[in-house]
Amino acid sequence: MTSLTPDSIVRLEADAVVLLDQRRLPDEEVELECRDAAEVAEAIRTLAIRGAPAIGVAAAYGYALAAQRGDDLEEADHVLRSARPTAVNLGWALDRMREEPTPERAREIHDDEVARCRHMAEHALELFRPGTRALTHCNTGGLATGGYGTALGAIRLAWERGLVEHVWVTETRPLLQGSRLTAWELERLGIPFSVIVDSAAGSLIARGLVDVVLTGADRIAANGDTANKIGTYGLAVLARRHEVTFVVVAPTSTIDHAAADGDAIPIEERASAEVSGGYPAVNPAFDVTPAELIDAIVTEDGVRRGALIG
Amino acid sequence: MTSLTPDSIVRLEADAVVLLDQRRLPDEEVELECRDAAEVAEAIRTLAIRGAPAIGVAAAYGYALAAQRGDDLEEADHVLRSARPTAVNLGWALDRMREEPTPERAREIHDDEVARCRHMAEHALELFRPGTRALTHCNTGGLATGGYGTALGAIRLAWERGLVEHVWVTETRPLLQGSRLTAWELERLGIPFSVIVDSAAGSLIARGLVDVVLTGADRIAANGDTANKIGTYGLAVLARRHEVTFVVVAPTSTIDHAAADGDAIPIEERASAEVSGGYPAVNPAFDVTPAELIDAIVTEDGVRRGALIG
Repeated sequence: MTSLTPDSIVRLEADAVVLLDQRRLPDEEVELECRDAAEVAEAIRTLAIRGAPAIGVAAAYGYALAAQRGDDLEEADHVLRSARPTAVNLGWALDRMREEPTPERAREIHDDEVARCRHMAEHALELFRPGTRALTHCNTGGLATGGYGTALGAIRLAWERGLVEHVWVTETRPLLQGSRLTAWELERLGIPFSVIVDSAAGSLIARGLVDVVLTGADRIAANGDTANKIGTYGLAVLARRHEVTFVVVAPTSTIDHAAADGDAIPIEERASAEVSGGYPAVNPAFDVTPAELIDAIVTEDGVRRGALIG
Repeated sequence: MTSLTPDSIVRLEADAVVLLDQRRLPDEEVELECRDAAEVAEAIRTLAIRGAPAIGVAAAYGYALAAQRGDDLEEADHVLRSARPTAVNLGWALDRMREEPTPERAREIHDDEVARCRHMAEHALELFRPGTRALTHCNTGGLATGGYGTALGAIRLAWERGLVEHVWVTETRPLLQGSRLTAWELERLGIPFSVIVDSAAGSLIARGLVDVVLTGADRIAANGDTANKIGTYGLAVLARRHEVTFVVVAPTSTIDHAAADGDAIPIEERASAEVSGGYPAVNPAFDVTPAELIDAIVTEDGVRRGALIG
């Protein structure tokens, strides 16, 4: 059984970048060996590895592999950078690799990512009490971040400190990152959990079975409005109605100071085929939760309560 | 292609009750021939036909078939009544059949059910304006009611009157009655619609793309609190936050005067296997929406605005 170490998610070997193929979870735990930068880019493009921090790390290793092989680094940069053009971390990791195209630099990027998540988790501890029942959405764990996790990392550390009684895991339609990936991680970590359909969250919250809701973020506007996986907004509305704490856990790199508020964040539409077979469908990938509904934003720098980002 | 007439959903023939097998929709349109009351009961038990009004009608035809065959009517009553013991309509339809075990009485029960839906739909017209974009949850159409529908019947009539621009159809996890059955009905009726994942409703409502939310009801307490398919409560909370009209369409037979309020309605838990493969899951079948969030309850008697049921 794969343990949830950073190396088990993605690592550089002598002649390959090796990563856990997330497309085949939870049914099979299979490693994918990518022999050059193009194969790493293909793994990113086809979601064998996903989650912005994790794909930044994978791209860094891919670039280091190209350098190790003596391949054309301009071409490696291009193919990796264009694998998922909207992911901010991808470009950021590659910029750092261009300064120093070594395995050590790639390892440093990976270590930094894990350390950032650890810091977020430490800061988030103040939001838990003994017996906390936490609800989380999508997958924000080691799989998404290269080893530890944002919202799920916070839950993991709080559980290790004896503060978590139970975790509610939303399925997260349409791609089921919750029931496939978060459930897989929690089982490996030995943390007690139950999967629910996304629309059951309201019933659980109304019945007093949830103490805190924690999610990650795709992008945070300057005023604190937060874009995240579709369904996050509804969870925040329900949490506020029932006075349940709603928390976003995300690195400062997620804050987009160029976006004044949520209106400046475009709503990505994904393929309707993800939703249902054959009928017309509309499939927004994320929604925007206004800052006023967010009780705390946790970054590697600390806990920011209330709406405003500094 | 099956048209959505009452007879196409369920009917009595000389030697069988014939019904459209809803388990195989939308992939295949196959009729199931039930040769005796036990086969009708089996069809109800295995969800070949579902929806409280529709199974009441099927049971009535099953009883008439038993009478036609000269079978033991006590045994027919027993096997049909116990097919889904919690369905109120089943017992009610069989009580009427015991008074007069004829095909004519069964037909009358079916006709009454369709007429009740038509009356609800007529009353609900006042809640639509030209260009209305309606959102509905689960399946409350002809398939569920034996020919016309409650919430979906109201949308159907409003569309025929030129009042509906678009219908948003929630998938309705875990059994996908929305993306399988409601989508199938709307396509046949030629009504423009899009399927969405359940958790996308909040995004659409927040973006001003929904004018009215209409759902059915499993049970309505005396004070108007309404139990319905899981996810209904979250839709009502979102609708209220964005001042979108939230409407329940259901026959008066759904009102349980013995239940003072929603706390008296038990929350049915269904099998966790419906939610996800292999991981622990919690699967409440419905939730309770408090009367204060319901702008109107439409029955065959008219539109009741505000919380109180007479």
